[in-house]
Amino acid sequence: MFTACQILLGFSSLPNFSKIMRPLYCFLLLIVGFIIASCAKQSSNFSGLAERIEKKRNLRVVCFANIITPIVGEMPANLGERINTVGAGKLAVKLYNPDELVGAMEILDVVSEGKVDAGFGAAGFWAGNIPSSPIFSSIPFGPNANEYLAWFYEGNGMKLYQEMYDSHGFNVKVLLAGMIPPETSGWFTKEINSLDDLEGLKMRFFGFGGEVMKQFGVAVRLLPPGEIYPALEKGVIDATEYAMPSIDEGLGFHKIAKYNYFPGWHQQATTFELIINKDVWNSLSESQQAILEQAGRANLVYGIAKGDGSQGPAMKRMAERGVEQRTWPPQVVEAFKKTWEELAAQKAEDDPFFKKVWEDLQQFRAEYKEWGDRAYIY
Amino acid sequence: MFTACQILLGFSSLPNFSKIMRPLYCFLLLIVGFIIASCAKQSSNFSGLAERIEKKRNLRVVCFANIITPIVGEMPANLGERINTVGAGKLAVKLYNPDELVGAMEILDVVSEGKVDAGFGAAGFWAGNIPSSPIFSSIPFGPNANEYLAWFYEGNGMKLYQEMYDSHGFNVKVLLAGMIPPETSGWFTKEINSLDDLEGLKMRFFGFGGEVMKQFGVAVRLLPPGEIYPALEKGVIDATEYAMPSIDEGLGFHKIAKYNYFPGWHQQATTFELIINKDVWNSLSESQQAILEQAGRANLVYGIAKGDGSQGPAMKRMAERGVEQRTWPPQVVEAFKKTWEELAAQKAEDDPFFKKVWEDLQQFRAEYKEWGDRAYIY
Repeated sequence: MFTACQILLGFSSLPNFSKIMRPLYCFLLLIVGFIIASCAKQSSNFSGLAERIEKKRNLRVVCFANIITPIVGEMPANLGERINTVGAGKLAVKLYNPDELVGAMEILDVVSEGKVDAGFGAAGFWAGNIPSSPIFSSIPFGPNANEYLAWFYEGNGMKLYQEMYDSHGFNVKVLLAGMIPPETSGWFTKEINSLDDLEGLKMRFFGFGGEVMKQFGVAVRLLPPGEIYPALEKGVIDATEYAMPSIDEGLGFHKIAKYNYFPGWHQQATTFELIINKDVWNSLSESQQAILEQAGRANLVYGIAKGDGSQGPAMKRMAERGVEQRTWPPQVVEAFKKTWEELAAQKAEDDPFFKKVWEDLQQFRAEYKEWGDRAYIY
Repeated sequence: MFTACQILLGFSSLPNFSKIMRPLYCFLLLIVGFIIASCAKQSSNFSGLAERIEKKRNLRVVCFANIITPIVGEMPANLGERINTVGAGKLAVKLYNPDELVGAMEILDVVSEGKVDAGFGAAGFWAGNIPSSPIFSSIPFGPNANEYLAWFYEGNGMKLYQEMYDSHGFNVKVLLAGMIPPETSGWFTKEINSLDDLEGLKMRFFGFGGEVMKQFGVAVRLLPPGEIYPALEKGVIDATEYAMPSIDEGLGFHKIAKYNYFPGWHQQATTFELIINKDVWNSLSESQQAILEQAGRANLVYGIAKGDGSQGPAMKRMAERGVEQRTWPPQVVEAFKKTWEELAAQKAEDDPFFKKVWEDLQQFRAEYKEWGDRAYIY
């Protein structure tokens, strides 16, 4: 701009610069000045050089659940809306349902390879590639929402979560981007009166809880949300764990399975992640990164509030539909717990990364317990 | 811009438009075109008209606690940093410690009057003006973090919170902007062995919990954070409730009072607010409003995680300093609870707005209980 002004001012010293043209020329200068001022004003809306050269970025995000699925689909939908509203002018995301671009189970691979920019899912879905991954999604008899958040953000949780992807060769940056409070233990087509009744069941189960169920003779499969109902309908599975009443309701499990068991010993809190291709992440400005990180945190609150706040009414509706809402007898929960503890000890022996994370978490929980047991009245 | 082009083009039809000037004039047109193109390019970094005309806004925020105070001061500091990083180019806040612009207890008034743009504090500080206000900060034997968030965001909490300020004539928009998990019951210079030992104590106490303490003969005062230690030191008070070990530590209460009592029956979760002058709020763009709302939500996660995650180590340090960490006998907690329930019933009789909020919350909690009792294992 400055150079343009110098050129313009230089003209006035030219020969044959007519008297008529001089006022016109001054008028032109005024106009140019006005335009420059407009540009400068617009520039002053930015705070610094970094912002002035920041380019608008559009990111494609593949989701593990259809965005119309209650809560687990609403979570990425909300995340996207938050990013787009705050990011107006500098960052936008477009969400894709499973199978629009890639299948739910391929998300980690395609994001790491840079075929899409980012993905929304849960670490536990990648257990086939990274056996210890469910520890960052949910842990049987593990921390509830508060304690889990404390470990992730105040303890070493986020650091270890990122280290997991790095050390397993995945080129992704991970952010927490959703959380739900406890789940139910699952939907069963027949009544379970003892642990023996579990023997031979074909059941969809997510995470380490599924490994516990295997010890009781359950044939466990991990299916993404969209595939569960058809599998239940066709008898490919005869029970399913999934989420909580208001979420499960949207998937219609109650139409096939009439018994819903509590408590969610296997998932007292479950986290969801936004993974971003690391080259894409590194190419974003500080402000664009902050938009993503912060939208993820805001979405944790959304998931917890929506998850905990919508179950009472959903349970009432379930009861009206004839669903039997049962609570496991204490000795069954105790058997699950003992089995999990043995499994965790075995995992720590077999997998050095699991051992590292497990020991860190156990130490955190021991210190937390001193506080938690004294501070909470419920 | 278009008009400027038309004027420029119009010049070429003027008489006496010399041959020498014609190429120069065309060159000028090129420069003007270049400038216009630069402006247009800059504009294209925005997504729509609303963004193109969005002005950068700078807001002054007065805080109830000094931003160096652990957690309760760090919360507004973090909130400010979040807003400024994400808002780069379109929104910035500047924080003021208590007494830099106004005293901590004047925040609501000055924000409502538009003397400053916004304030960070807790609703319970305005109990002098609005007797029911502490219900939005914390409730004795009330909801913990999860349940409170569920009520605020999924129940009617936020709606009623805003209604409180509106109906009491305050011109502010309220956002949740921070939360801490349970507190301790307070610091005492002498051992409390029975409820009789409370009689005659002068104690700093926040919120409805303080009203419960009054029933046991305690002379209660509400002091803002910065005034507590000096009051304790001078013997103006001989006990203080404030927050949790890692926060209280920063204020040094343990140097004067050696007995710290648990659990925090009076505050199982405490929220903090960002109040914004409503005319200022309405003048912000959708995106600027979303930045504030979202930074507030992200800050809830910060407060919960930091609050719950930093107490174990703080309690260990307190024990090393000779602090006696005590737990009230169950019958004392039971007496506090019974007293609170009587007080709440009385408040509902005296104050129609309290009644409205209280009944809404009780109904929410009854439905929540159906879920909570079944779903949680702790």
